[in-house]
Amino acid sequence: MRIAIIGCGQLAQMLALAGIPLGIKFSFLADEGKQTDTQCVTGLGEIVVRNGHDTVEQLYRQLHCPDIVTVEKEHVDASLLRAFSEHCEVHPGHKAVSVCQHRYREKSMLDSLNIPTAHYAYLSNAQDMMSVRERFEYPFVIKSAVNGYDGKQQWRISSEQDVKNFLAEEHQGDFVVEQWVPFYKEVSLVAARDKRGSVDFYTLTENLHQDGILISSVAPASDISDVNIKTLQHYLTNIAEALDYVGVIAMECFVTKEQILVNELAPRVHNSGHWTQEGAYTCQFENHIRAISGLPLGKTKLHSVTGMLNLLGTKSPPTHLLTDGSTLHWYHKTSRPGRKLGHVNFIAESRVNLEALMKQFQSSM
Amino acid sequence: MRIAIIGCGQLAQMLALAGIPLGIKFSFLADEGKQTDTQCVTGLGEIVVRNGHDTVEQLYRQLHCPDIVTVEKEHVDASLLRAFSEHCEVHPGHKAVSVCQHRYREKSMLDSLNIPTAHYAYLSNAQDMMSVRERFEYPFVIKSAVNGYDGKQQWRISSEQDVKNFLAEEHQGDFVVEQWVPFYKEVSLVAARDKRGSVDFYTLTENLHQDGILISSVAPASDISDVNIKTLQHYLTNIAEALDYVGVIAMECFVTKEQILVNELAPRVHNSGHWTQEGAYTCQFENHIRAISGLPLGKTKLHSVTGMLNLLGTKSPPTHLLTDGSTLHWYHKTSRPGRKLGHVNFIAESRVNLEALMKQFQSSM
Repeated sequence: MRIAIIGCGQLAQMLALAGIPLGIKFSFLADEGKQTDTQCVTGLGEIVVRNGHDTVEQLYRQLHCPDIVTVEKEHVDASLLRAFSEHCEVHPGHKAVSVCQHRYREKSMLDSLNIPTAHYAYLSNAQDMMSVRERFEYPFVIKSAVNGYDGKQQWRISSEQDVKNFLAEEHQGDFVVEQWVPFYKEVSLVAARDKRGSVDFYTLTENLHQDGILISSVAPASDISDVNIKTLQHYLTNIAEALDYVGVIAMECFVTKEQILVNELAPRVHNSGHWTQEGAYTCQFENHIRAISGLPLGKTKLHSVTGMLNLLGTKSPPTHLLTDGSTLHWYHKTSRPGRKLGHVNFIAESRVNLEALMKQFQSSM
Repeated sequence: MRIAIIGCGQLAQMLALAGIPLGIKFSFLADEGKQTDTQCVTGLGEIVVRNGHDTVEQLYRQLHCPDIVTVEKEHVDASLLRAFSEHCEVHPGHKAVSVCQHRYREKSMLDSLNIPTAHYAYLSNAQDMMSVRERFEYPFVIKSAVNGYDGKQQWRISSEQDVKNFLAEEHQGDFVVEQWVPFYKEVSLVAARDKRGSVDFYTLTENLHQDGILISSVAPASDISDVNIKTLQHYLTNIAEALDYVGVIAMECFVTKEQILVNELAPRVHNSGHWTQEGAYTCQFENHIRAISGLPLGKTKLHSVTGMLNLLGTKSPPTHLLTDGSTLHWYHKTSRPGRKLGHVNFIAESRVNLEALMKQFQSSM
């Protein structure tokens, strides 16, 4: 069996490293102009770079006629996925990816499933801001409907002046305006859905972001009732069914004193599920491969209190800081300030010990 | 950091798959004439094939000047290891490998450490058999002192006629004669020793062999007292210290009604430790890499009852038989009857459930 992954980053790398032992061969598709950004997957399979001229059939052949095409990012050309689906299986499908890569389509789907999100409005262009601003209280957030990730293409609006500045910058495209949510905790739920529609969940994870970038995760999330966890699982099951989803999907949420709101979906393996490599019986990467290959999912159960720390801009692998309770996943990418270059997973007997381990690591870096 | 592995088989593959996430680059050295037997490690790093002409310095450069040389098999040229040690670190060292690759040197070391083994005698040539045969009772076993693995180069002697046949076959080289041990169980202990001399053990494992080839392992081994386990750990600590050993080492033992005898050592990651990929916090492959790289060892603790089943001669990856409690490690080798082509690891809540899972898998193949 051969799987082609669209994208050549660390998620593609970790998917391939988990899939090679299952007897699967891999190929990778890089975007035009991205041929120098493929170090993560060097050696793990054929790398094909799009050149803008090749037909999908040519790409399919260059990728060695994969049985399945999958993605490592949501910002892929959905029409390309649709075209590949005439040659082989594509998971997740183009419809699911298309919904998740556009904030308004995503919100509309969540509305249709009665899943609570932050109060929002859609702007077909930046000037529409004027007609909806009265529906929001400061602070609120304007987010580009497409192409946003890691907190990019977002503007926090706290005053009349911020509105004026935003409009003056003449941003192109469409947007979603969201009421700022006074959350005290961010959590994410990662699930895998197999081809028969069976859904398994990883333990709810607590995340810490800075400037929109994930810094660390800890599982299990503390202080979330079983009832709330069940509710979130119910939401994600409904979402995956509505999207006819096959593979791993992540749902990020805001926890406020009153409720839990769904923030956004990621139709792929997710940074907040990286801890599963050490803390769960089967990691999210293996389960994504198992799901899309038509295999039964492996056990998702957590076997240790686990944490993950992203390595942002780290120049070289910090192996000298490892202890018996930590291990490294280095992506073999070129170092740039702030870039995600690897992560460290921690396991411990208790949450207190875990936090001590993670703090010690962070302070030694 | 770069590690060169001597050997290109599945153990080299699994060492590299465990080491790449630690930020390490790999190179592989194949024996002369073995250039077609390197599929296991294709893509995971440079593969250099010995040609009989290159000096060690040339090999060292072709391997991209590794920081460390290690091995995936015991039958390597110890003089090559010694020569590499003038250019970089070599773990395990040539002395340790040299002892373990010769049955008489290995037995002599075990004697010197007062570690019990089967009653034995050394034969500098096959004809010496005549002078020692009276010291043994039928059945006994004659083993080539070198180059034996998976039960090859061994002769079980049960009668005068067997002795005559053995002598008539005019075998070359030296041998060890061993009294047959009426064991009811075979167990193995896998340990890792780091550069500071700290030793950690994996859970004692119970093994099933057929015709000298490992069929399956289960951890923890049943019915072995804590006192006996401590004794075995004490033996292996002494062995590793005597060999000035760095890395993972395995000790195979026979359990009889009266005692536990050490059968043989493997100066490398071992087939009976493959279950650690799913059942332990840190697998033997990662811990070998951590040990030789000067990192602290990861936790060796078992977190589930675990089993391993070798796939011998299987034509294609049997993914269709996987369940939520099993996963596959396929080596991407050319299939040949009886060849080790992969293994399946199983996890379960109890030994009874584990055995049921493993039996079901075996009967479906």
